[in-house]
Amino acid sequence: MSGTLVQQAGSLSLDIDADRLLRRIADLARIGRSEVTGGITREGFSAADREARAYLMAEARAAGLAPSIDAAGNVIVRPVHVSSSSTDRQALMMGSHLDTVVNGGRLDGAYGVVAALEVLQTLVESGTETRHEPVAVAFANEEGALFPQPFWGSMAIAGRLAGLPREPQDHQGRPLREALRLAGGDLDALGSAGWPSGSVAAYLELHVEQGPVLERSGNRIGVVDAITGRIVLTLEVRGAAGHSGTAPMEGRRDALAAAARVVLATENISRERGLCRVATVGRIDPHPNTPNTIVGAVRMTVDLRDTDVWRAATAEQALRHALDAIAAATGTEIEVVAETRSDPVSTSPALRTAIERSTDELGLPYETLPSGAGHDAQMIGDIAPIGMIFVPSLGGISHVPEEDTDPADLVAGARVLFRTALRTVGPTSYPSHQD
Amino acid sequence: MSGTLVQQAGSLSLDIDADRLLRRIADLARIGRSEVTGGITREGFSAADREARAYLMAEARAAGLAPSIDAAGNVIVRPVHVSSSSTDRQALMMGSHLDTVVNGGRLDGAYGVVAALEVLQTLVESGTETRHEPVAVAFANEEGALFPQPFWGSMAIAGRLAGLPREPQDHQGRPLREALRLAGGDLDALGSAGWPSGSVAAYLELHVEQGPVLERSGNRIGVVDAITGRIVLTLEVRGAAGHSGTAPMEGRRDALAAAARVVLATENISRERGLCRVATVGRIDPHPNTPNTIVGAVRMTVDLRDTDVWRAATAEQALRHALDAIAAATGTEIEVVAETRSDPVSTSPALRTAIERSTDELGLPYETLPSGAGHDAQMIGDIAPIGMIFVPSLGGISHVPEEDTDPADLVAGARVLFRTALRTVGPTSYPSHQD
Repeated sequence: MSGTLVQQAGSLSLDIDADRLLRRIADLARIGRSEVTGGITREGFSAADREARAYLMAEARAAGLAPSIDAAGNVIVRPVHVSSSSTDRQALMMGSHLDTVVNGGRLDGAYGVVAALEVLQTLVESGTETRHEPVAVAFANEEGALFPQPFWGSMAIAGRLAGLPREPQDHQGRPLREALRLAGGDLDALGSAGWPSGSVAAYLELHVEQGPVLERSGNRIGVVDAITGRIVLTLEVRGAAGHSGTAPMEGRRDALAAAARVVLATENISRERGLCRVATVGRIDPHPNTPNTIVGAVRMTVDLRDTDVWRAATAEQALRHALDAIAAATGTEIEVVAETRSDPVSTSPALRTAIERSTDELGLPYETLPSGAGHDAQMIGDIAPIGMIFVPSLGGISHVPEEDTDPADLVAGARVLFRTALRTVGPTSYPSHQD
Repeated sequence: MSGTLVQQAGSLSLDIDADRLLRRIADLARIGRSEVTGGITREGFSAADREARAYLMAEARAAGLAPSIDAAGNVIVRPVHVSSSSTDRQALMMGSHLDTVVNGGRLDGAYGVVAALEVLQTLVESGTETRHEPVAVAFANEEGALFPQPFWGSMAIAGRLAGLPREPQDHQGRPLREALRLAGGDLDALGSAGWPSGSVAAYLELHVEQGPVLERSGNRIGVVDAITGRIVLTLEVRGAAGHSGTAPMEGRRDALAAAARVVLATENISRERGLCRVATVGRIDPHPNTPNTIVGAVRMTVDLRDTDVWRAATAEQALRHALDAIAAATGTEIEVVAETRSDPVSTSPALRTAIERSTDELGLPYETLPSGAGHDAQMIGDIAPIGMIFVPSLGGISHVPEEDTDPADLVAGARVLFRTALRTVGPTSYPSHQD
């Protein structure tokens, strides 16, 4: 990324195809959509997720591009005209994910994937020769809604999956091996999905903000300076089941009564004590879960987030103290059976500058802000400088059917991505003819 | 039930077949059993429940008895030698249920059904002519574990199903109509399952105590004086889903945080305030229930029990006040979407005396106690005098895989049922030959 390139991008009249971008977003919004709620459920490696990936590959092929699937199930789209001898070029990687939470929205992830494809296709169709190879990626299983390995695909590309259990399963015991195979991956060849150090010159991700900051300020583009860190603890609460009519209150060891205290303690750590930015229990699975029986065991998750790694650690410490106190008070055992951690990650100052210049050229007001949500960019940050671009979320909401963004902002965000990419890929020859 | 009959029963040396009783209990314990937990899951109208019912009918047929299924799906076993002209006799009905909670024990319900069959078979095989017709019943869907209509079968027999929704469904929207059809019933002919007033001379139910009273006192038989009343409220808590990383704590309307407060308020109503004997949240279904998303809605049940109908009503009132306060404090809506109520029911003093005399004859220590759990007897109490016999539960526990009773107590309980039945059916001629 040289200052020269930053200047050059401004002189181009090349543009993305806004109609094609919006059409693809609309097409994807029909895959996994509930007619009842309007929400979208494409849990990673589910049938609906596979359908969305097949759609992306078909669009890429129809555009004359070269899609493929790596061992981790990531869909990788390269320019079709790149010969094998030219893969020594560093990549400009762009992307996001196609999987969703349960009953989520149409933009989280999908928008960034479609925009990455749009930028790649525009570069290829215009015949722009570039120093870096533009590559669009749909990372597998970012949300971890079904298989509890979020950031699966980007972790594989970053070479981070070494500590994985040999046979990962979902909450119902379904093997990831088979789900991955159906999605075109191969659990035994995961190592082959890693990109060597130095092979990626830069990574850019365009995403909806999923929060209220841009909407409140009126700015149309967010330049992300850091991605929040996240600690997710999976807890097992073990009490004693029993008949809800005959077991006296004294002597009960009700695992749900303990879990309820954990929910309130989690809330308290952020809301009253201010130890971390947000703290949430999003999942709780009681057993046996029937009106007539005292709950004997609960599995649940606690999610703690902060952009400061020390604050997050302090919050976790406070939570663990609370768990001990709750277990003692309720006669239950509370065990942390799984932990996932993603540390806060800063974006590249050079890429932030490239994004800001591109935004200025388009006359869009912007601001710098942190990302409250986690993103694949966090993982790719291990092997490459990263940049992230946000567009406003209506009502500041996400992970719900009502998640939405003004179409004009969707197009504006993709234009910023395109211009930032042009600055980054470094065109070595300009297109010979333009519209 | 005359005093004469009470005397006569004592003079008989007829006895049930203890080995056959225990063998059938063991056979049923293999149906719906989890190899992992050892627990039994035969939710009413599930495939495992149907298998247990088929087993009962096969055993009855092999014994030369006449099993049939009524429109509500109850299995009714009559003596085979009863001609249609003789059905004017009043019945002595005995029974319980074969369905279980999720991951429950082997005795709750099944024991009473097997014992009823044993008594009926012993009477028929011995050639005992009786004034009343002995009838053994396996009531359908007592627990309501899958279809939320507990006491379904006994309510149908008592003619109590008039206020039923036209097309009942389970929590996943599966229609009861089809499940009932598979079990041999017919939703459109439910009225035909009712027994006319006066057709049942008495109803007897043998059951494990499911509580700690007999074990603690060392008494081997419990004579039930009343069955506890129960109020079950199904609540819908509606908040707002959102991204667990980007939605600030302020302004959240977290339905699980509200539901957790409902769990603690429920516990408080019984444990701290003593408004009713027991109060339990046994079921909680959050939506969407994924680590990454604030819970937007929760469906849950609250179960309040007392043997005094006014105390139960006071507890319900207190709970409803608490719900209003929680909704206001958490920015959620909490609606009571379904209610089931069973009032406390007293047993017949004459049947209690018959049980006590039978127990005395067998030299077993007994005590009088209330039933903390609900039973089909409560419903049959609408159309007949009822009597209930308890045997001790090891550790006082039930609705769990570890539910158990000493085999000697299982046999003793069935002997008390047999002698009480003999007193009640009124033998008109003694068996011509005995073992």
